[in-house]
Amino acid sequence: MDLKKANEFLSVNDNGHLTFEELDTVELAKKYGTPLYLMSENSIKSNIKNYLDAIEESFGKRGHVAYACKAFCCKEMARLADNQGLWLDVVSSGELYTALSADFPAERIIFHGNNKSNDELKLAVDNSVGRIVVDNEYELERLINIAETTGKVQKIQIRLKPGVDPDTHQYVRTGGINSKFGISLSDGTIDRIVRTANQCKAVKLVGIHCHIGSQILDYSVYFDAVDVMVKIISDINQNHNLSLEELNLGGGLGIYYKNDETPNIRDFVNDIHSSLVKSEQKYGIKIPAIYFEPGRSIVGNAGITLYKVGAIKKEEGLTSYLSVDGGMADNPRYALYKSKYSIILANKADKTEMEKFTVAGKCCESGDLLQEDVLIADAVPGDILAVLSTGAYNYSMSSNYNRIPRPPVVMINKDTSRIIVKRESLEDIIRNDI
Amino acid sequence: MDLKKANEFLSVNDNGHLTFEELDTVELAKKYGTPLYLMSENSIKSNIKNYLDAIEESFGKRGHVAYACKAFCCKEMARLADNQGLWLDVVSSGELYTALSADFPAERIIFHGNNKSNDELKLAVDNSVGRIVVDNEYELERLINIAETTGKVQKIQIRLKPGVDPDTHQYVRTGGINSKFGISLSDGTIDRIVRTANQCKAVKLVGIHCHIGSQILDYSVYFDAVDVMVKIISDINQNHNLSLEELNLGGGLGIYYKNDETPNIRDFVNDIHSSLVKSEQKYGIKIPAIYFEPGRSIVGNAGITLYKVGAIKKEEGLTSYLSVDGGMADNPRYALYKSKYSIILANKADKTEMEKFTVAGKCCESGDLLQEDVLIADAVPGDILAVLSTGAYNYSMSSNYNRIPRPPVVMINKDTSRIIVKRESLEDIIRNDI
Repeated sequence: MDLKKANEFLSVNDNGHLTFEELDTVELAKKYGTPLYLMSENSIKSNIKNYLDAIEESFGKRGHVAYACKAFCCKEMARLADNQGLWLDVVSSGELYTALSADFPAERIIFHGNNKSNDELKLAVDNSVGRIVVDNEYELERLINIAETTGKVQKIQIRLKPGVDPDTHQYVRTGGINSKFGISLSDGTIDRIVRTANQCKAVKLVGIHCHIGSQILDYSVYFDAVDVMVKIISDINQNHNLSLEELNLGGGLGIYYKNDETPNIRDFVNDIHSSLVKSEQKYGIKIPAIYFEPGRSIVGNAGITLYKVGAIKKEEGLTSYLSVDGGMADNPRYALYKSKYSIILANKADKTEMEKFTVAGKCCESGDLLQEDVLIADAVPGDILAVLSTGAYNYSMSSNYNRIPRPPVVMINKDTSRIIVKRESLEDIIRNDI
Repeated sequence: MDLKKANEFLSVNDNGHLTFEELDTVELAKKYGTPLYLMSENSIKSNIKNYLDAIEESFGKRGHVAYACKAFCCKEMARLADNQGLWLDVVSSGELYTALSADFPAERIIFHGNNKSNDELKLAVDNSVGRIVVDNEYELERLINIAETTGKVQKIQIRLKPGVDPDTHQYVRTGGINSKFGISLSDGTIDRIVRTANQCKAVKLVGIHCHIGSQILDYSVYFDAVDVMVKIISDINQNHNLSLEELNLGGGLGIYYKNDETPNIRDFVNDIHSSLVKSEQKYGIKIPAIYFEPGRSIVGNAGITLYKVGAIKKEEGLTSYLSVDGGMADNPRYALYKSKYSIILANKADKTEMEKFTVAGKCCESGDLLQEDVLIADAVPGDILAVLSTGAYNYSMSSNYNRIPRPPVVMINKDTSRIIVKRESLEDIIRNDI
C-alpha cells in the first residue's frame, strides 16, 4: 500500500509500526484505547495551506475559504479553522453553537441548510453570523420577519440549483435540477426571491451559492457550474439593476480513499480560477468575492481510525471475517454508500504477505461491515487495525447503535497528542434516560 | 391508509387529527416539540401479551421470551420488560449497563455479540448475567479465563449458523453459512467448543442459539432452522453424552411497515411450536426450555415519529419535496436499507385527496430522505407529519449528524404521556468537546 497517497504524514517505523506525524500508532492505541479516531493537525494545516496559497496566487484578495464543518465538527476544530483564518460553514444550530462556544468570530460564519427552523434562523441572526445562505422562499419570508424584529441587516446569499450533475454517489449529488437543495433556475422563483430581498431592509442580498456534490474526483464538472453561476449573476445584475458581490461555489472536492486518482487542491483552485476568468470575460463582469467551502478535502485524509482486532473466522470456501471493536456505529459510510477505504494492520505495517479479509464491526447486524474482501496481513486477535482517510464523515456521522459509546478524537501534532473530544462513558449513554 | 394495520391504537378524531392511544398527536407535537418519538405503552404490552399468551398455550412453562433491546433500549424500556416478566437480550456493555441501571434482574439477561470485549465479558460475569451466548472459540477461551478468576459458573449458550437464509435485506440476514455471526456446523468447531466448555468448571453449556435474520415476513423459513437446531442438540447430546436443556431461536419476526402481509405473533409462536414438536419427535428428544428473542415485533409498531413540515418545493416535471425538521439523523433506515414507511399528516389525517411527495430531512445530504414518492395530503409548512412503525431501530440507530440533537422519546399510555428519554440539548452536543 502506498501510504503517502493517503497522507504524507503516514509512515512505517523500525518496529514495523504505522506512524502518523512522528507518533507510533500502536502506542497511541495503547495510550488512549480503541476504537480511536486520530486527527493529524499538520495534515489539516497542510490542506488549508494548499487552499489558501493557491487562492492567494490565483484569486488574490477576492478568494475566501470556509471550512464546511459538517465533515468534522468539534470546538477544537472550530478553533483551528479560526486560527488559520478560515470562514466556517455551519448547517445547524448544533454546529453554530459549537462554533460560538469555541469563540469562532460570527462574522466569518456562513449558515446553511435546506430546512432551517425559526429557532436556528433566530440564533444565527441574534449572533450576527456573516452570511445566511437562503435555500428557498419560505425561509426568506421567515428570515425577514426574524431579522426585522432585531433591527439588524442580515447579509444573505441564495442557494441555486445550477443543473450540474457530477459523477458521484447519488446520495451526495446536490447540484442537479431535481435536488432537495436550493432554488430552481427555470420557474421564476429566483426573480421573486431577488425582488423580495431587495424590497426589505432587514436582509441584504450579497451573492449566490451552489454546491454540486461531494467526493468529486473529476472536477471539470465545476467549470460548467461556474459558467452557469457567472451568467446568473450577470442576469440578476441586469434584470434587477444590482451589482452582486459574491459567488459561493460550495465544496465537494474528492480525496484519496483507495486507488482513486485524486485531484490536487492547488490544481483545483487554479483551474477553477481560469474557468471563472473565462466566464467573467464571456459575460463582461468581475465578481468581487469568491468563496469555496471545502470540508472533506480539509479533514478527510487527516484522520485515521484505530481498532483492536477480535474474533477471526476463516473457513474454506467462505468469507474470512476479521472483527474489530468498532464498526458502523463509529463509521456508517460502508453501510450507507459502500465507501472504499484503505486498511492496514498498524502493528504489522511492514508486512507484504496478504490475506483476503472482510472487516466486520461488533454491532448485531450483518450490514455492520467496514470493508469487504480487502488484503490485510495475516491477523491475530489483539492486532491494531487502521482504517485510513476517516477524518471526514466518520465522527460526525457516528451513532450509539447498540448503545456503544463513541470513541474519542485525539489530535496529534508532530510528537504530541491530546484528546479533543472525550470518549463517551457508559454514564453518557444513559444520561438522558428517565 | 388503513391505520389499524399499522397499529390498533391509531385512529382519527373529530378534528381530523391522528390519535395514538387516546391522545391527539398534534397536541403532543405542540406539548413536547418536534421531532418527537412517541411510544405507546399499551401497544408494547399488547405485543408482549401476544407472545406470552401464545407461548403459554403452546409451549407451557418451557417457553421464554427475551426482549432484544437493540431495537429500542432505554432504562424505562428495561423496566417495562421486567414488569412484564420478560428476559432481556443485550448486545453490548452499553445495553447491559442500561439494564442494570434500571434494576433489571441480571439472571434474566442474555448477553450477545459477535465480538465481545474482555471488559464486556467481565461486566457480564461480574454481574452474574443469566446467559452469555458464545459466538466463537476465541470468545470462549477469554470467557473461561475471566469466569475462572471470579469463581463463578457462567451459563452459556453457543451461537450457531444453521445455514438458513431468509428472504430479507442482505444487511439483516444472519443465519446463513457465510454470516459474520456464530459457529459453523461443518468444520468441527462446534465439537471443539462443546468439549472445551465441558472440561471447564467456570462455564456451563446449557444450550444452543441461532438467529436467522430480521424483518422476516415469511416465517416458514424458521421451520428449517428449528429442524437443524433440534438435530444439532440431538447430535451434541449423543456425541458428548450431554443433555442440553435450552434451544434459543433468536428473533427476527417482521412487522407491518407498508402494504406488507404481516405475520401474526400468535400464529408464529404456535406454528414454531408445531414445527418444534415434529422435529423433536423425528430426533427422539424433548428440549426442556425454548427461548424467543423478539425486538422489532415488540416495539416496532408501538412507535411513531412526529415532524413539523418546513420548506416545500414543487416544480412541474420534478420531484415534489416536503422537508421536515428531522431526517436521517433520527431515522437512517431509508438511507441504509430503503426501508418503507407509512406516512400521514397528523393534522390532516381525515383527508383523502393525496399528492405525491418525497419526504426530505434537514441534513446537508441528498441521501437524507425519509421516503420517496409517497402519497400525502396537500401539505403546507407547519403541518405535523407522522411516520408510522418507527418504534424499532430509529431511536437506537440515531446519530448527531450535522450536530443535530436527538429527539426525546415520550411514552403514552391511554390519556397520559411522559418523557422517558429527554431531548438532547445543545449543551449535550458539545459536552465531550475539549
